[in-house]
Amino acid sequence: MKRVFIAGATGSMGKQVVQLVEKQADCELVGVLAPHAKKDGDFAKTVQCFDQLDEIDISADIWIDFTTPQAVFENVKFALNHQMRPIVGTSGLTTEQTEELQKIAEGQQLGGVIAPNFGLSAVLLMKFAQEAARYFPDAEIIEMHHADKLDAPSGTAINTAKMIAKGRSGSGSIDTNNDARARGDLYDGVPIHAVRLPGYVAHEQVLFGGPGEALTIRQDSFDRSSFMQGVKVALDQVMSLSKLVVGLDKILSI
Amino acid sequence: MKRVFIAGATGSMGKQVVQLVEKQADCELVGVLAPHAKKDGDFAKTVQCFDQLDEIDISADIWIDFTTPQAVFENVKFALNHQMRPIVGTSGLTTEQTEELQKIAEGQQLGGVIAPNFGLSAVLLMKFAQEAARYFPDAEIIEMHHADKLDAPSGTAINTAKMIAKGRSGSGSIDTNNDARARGDLYDGVPIHAVRLPGYVAHEQVLFGGPGEALTIRQDSFDRSSFMQGVKVALDQVMSLSKLVVGLDKILSI
Amino acid sequence: MKRVFIAGATGSMGKQVVQLVEKQADCELVGVLAPHAKKDGDFAKTVQCFDQLDEIDISADIWIDFTTPQAVFENVKFALNHQMRPIVGTSGLTTEQTEELQKIAEGQQLGGVIAPNFGLSAVLLMKFAQEAARYFPDAEIIEMHHADKLDAPSGTAINTAKMIAKGRSGSGSIDTNNDARARGDLYDGVPIHAVRLPGYVAHEQVLFGGPGEALTIRQDSFDRSSFMQGVKVALDQVMSLSKLVVGLDKILSI
Amino acid sequence: MKRVFIAGATGSMGKQVVQLVEKQADCELVGVLAPHAKKDGDFAKTVQCFDQLDEIDISADIWIDFTTPQAVFENVKFALNHQMRPIVGTSGLTTEQTEELQKIAEGQQLGGVIAPNFGLSAVLLMKFAQEAARYFPDAEIIEMHHADKLDAPSGTAINTAKMIAKGRSGSGSIDTNNDARARGDLYDGVPIHAVRLPGYVAHEQVLFGGPGEALTIRQDSFDRSSFMQGVKVALDQVMSLSKLVVGLDKILSI
Repeated sequence: MKRVFIAGATGSMGKQVVQLVEKQADCELVGVLAPHAKKDGDFAKTVQCFDQLDEIDISADIWIDFTTPQAVFENVKFALNHQMRPIVGTSGLTTEQTEELQKIAEGQQLGGVIAPNFGLSAVLLMKFAQEAARYFPDAEIIEMHHADKLDAPSGTAINTAKMIAKGRSGSGSIDTNNDARARGDLYDGVPIHAVRLPGYVAHEQVLFGGPGEALTIRQDSFDRSSFMQGVKVALDQVMSLSKLVVGLDKILSI
Repeated sequence: MKRVFIAGATGSMGKQVVQLVEKQADCELVGVLAPHAKKDGDFAKTVQCFDQLDEIDISADIWIDFTTPQAVFENVKFALNHQMRPIVGTSGLTTEQTEELQKIAEGQQLGGVIAPNFGLSAVLLMKFAQEAARYFPDAEIIEMHHADKLDAPSGTAINTAKMIAKGRSGSGSIDTNNDARARGDLYDGVPIHAVRLPGYVAHEQVLFGGPGEALTIRQDSFDRSSFMQGVKVALDQVMSLSKLVVGLDKILSI
Repeated sequence: MKRVFIAGATGSMGKQVVQLVEKQADCELVGVLAPHAKKDGDFAKTVQCFDQLDEIDISADIWIDFTTPQAVFENVKFALNHQMRPIVGTSGLTTEQTEELQKIAEGQQLGGVIAPNFGLSAVLLMKFAQEAARYFPDAEIIEMHHADKLDAPSGTAINTAKMIAKGRSGSGSIDTNNDARARGDLYDGVPIHAVRLPGYVAHEQVLFGGPGEALTIRQDSFDRSSFMQGVKVALDQVMSLSKLVVGLDKILSI
Repeated sequence: MKRVFIAGATGSMGKQVVQLVEKQADCELVGVLAPHAKKDGDFAKTVQCFDQLDEIDISADIWIDFTTPQAVFENVKFALNHQMRPIVGTSGLTTEQTEELQKIAEGQQLGGVIAPNFGLSAVLLMKFAQEAARYFPDAEIIEMHHADKLDAPSGTAINTAKMIAKGRSGSGSIDTNNDARARGDLYDGVPIHAVRLPGYVAHEQVLFGGPGEALTIRQDSFDRSSFMQGVKVALDQVMSLSKLVVGLDKILSI
């Protein structure tokens, strides 16, 4: 039985993680860290509730973190120093912080996973895009989001472009230096187009073209429940990881 | 029986038009204008061939023109002055030339059609987009073409934006003033994104979004044979037109 | 100022309609009919609450009905007999009941609208599909729904097939008598394919093909908030309708 | 320099292979086998032409075969027995014939590739679909072809279903026993839907759905030139293969 501790258990993601862990036959929720968690008492009696990091006096096998950019670094350091393997969905860790955490993990001989995106469809899209680019160097990305998303293009789209560039065996045949605005924004030699429309949630397509044929990979995120599949994969894998890895794709068994 | 004359009968479009006319039970091909048409003798004996406009000494009901921007104005003027109703697929007529031709047509009491695009899927896409914009003011256009297309966005995409603007009842809710390059190029308040990839031919999508729902209209042109359906619509309608209209959508009976 | 009465105001759709009406500058919510509405007191003091149809002793201009198949007929009859114009989103009215209501409406000289689907994207898709079929008689429908939807194909898909058949000028060129199961189910000569997958909500595509080109119309319903746009259209139009019409498409001003 | 022999060099595929080989800097076309090849003389003087298999008296490193189901087995046997490595795009080899050829290849210590489909987009789609099924057991296939394709579903779609079944870690959550015709035809537990429309060429989509998200992989084959990319991959790899493998995916370096 894996003993699981959840930091941020009362947030929108945290609540779903609590439900997920409670459904796993091989997991036991032993504690949570969240503001007011103690007082509100929404958890089972077997779950110990903590308001502050330094109050925590119990141990667990796994530390799941869906908190805030301000809290995540100290949280994960605490977890590693107390022999808990981290599964981190909180964004905001700098490269330096990530490297420091990886060193601590190495010292403690603990594995774990830090994932900027727990959506399996997005993670698979990026993985496949990198592989396809080996044979289809010409690619363009179209990401589509709800009207309220302010930044463009999305972080996932920029990351996808990076992976396509890594996968390419040569340069594509398209003139990407075209400065027409309609041709999108160029990242690592891959044009990205960003659509913003009401009704849409979060979607991304990668379009590949070659002589006489086309290949398209698309992912749609309809709601955040989608992240739970990715967290489940991490829960299944984390005890056998020997390193603190970055990216859910690193632990997919394909 | 409609007597049909074809100008540009030996070009890539012209050849297909010849085949189309010969297949129509109610049409008879009576003459063609094309360089070397006379000498090459690829036409039936009943078809009279002319190399020069001023040699033409026969009459017809319909003049189909798939020639060159240089020739089209004089051709259509000649046709109208000789009581032939024009179906014009040649591009390059200026607004002034078009208006002059419309006046001549009015004087001769002849109808006809000048169409920048004879592809029915593209024409219907634009028509539907204009109608949908009444209820979905938020729209974006993605056009996708082969890698060799130099201009971006395509003329059809710009025209679609114009029709969406015409159909809109109010302004959309999206901030289209966002100057991020990934947000595309703005025409009449509609962002246009242009994709250029090998393998692709000519494709266009209009994406509409509203609260909790989306509507998408897409057209694909795989090859030029698609234009023949539009020419056939024109052939069916031209004898009953009372004006020289611009745009195939003007003569669709829906 | 239009005085609006809402039947079924505490249901999932009803609650959204209440919000919609309260946001309209030219509408005033004057009363609701719903079980326990009186006791629960979730409504403004200016709104009169009724638990039973026969208790209603106030008048309004418009009656919006999102109740149950058991209640809808008596509700709408009551509304018409009390000079209220109905906007009906409740399903379950038989053809006979609908015709009887239309007669009462005629006698009372009242207009109204009964709509099986208030989703604008679905209504526009059906309208455009009927129009496109005039020029593209070959069409197939693919509807995609969440895994829990038991019936296949969906009612909207069957209705779309009916409208395509109505719009067709001739028969298509495809052999739809092919009895291979993969070729889908045939309704009015249009093959319908039904996809059932978790994650999906409610989506429909119509694919048209002709020589060298294709036209595709797709709608996505992500959540029920989408119906509110359609109810708003009905609210805007209902005072000027002279008949009780069936189908939101009948009152779209395009 | 690789010496290449092409069987079926005057067929529609063969002609394109001839052009491909002539463009490769590291390949030399040394001979062809084709009816009338000798007489017609369309080949360079350095290319030896043969009408019959038993006339061939030259040697080469690679034998490319795009002939007929009747000829392919004897052709490839001949090639292997004469130390030529086969690249086979001809269909029609039975399982027994394939196994016999693999034994001969083993005896001769020669590698090669027999590929039912040289289209890279189709091969990648199948590979990715198998991988995605590990995390998305719920999948459906939609294949779309031109109106003249008689069989349904396509062989590639059936093969894709087989690979999805292989990749699945458990059974999906969808009731695929539903006997509604609209639910398609079931292969290895994966519903396949087949669309037949004029204008379409050869296209396939795999739709995956999971809680709150969807993943879609699509490939479009617009014309047969697409196969040449796959033949080029085979040309690049064949000299380093130690076995006669079946399927282009076996030699993709990803």
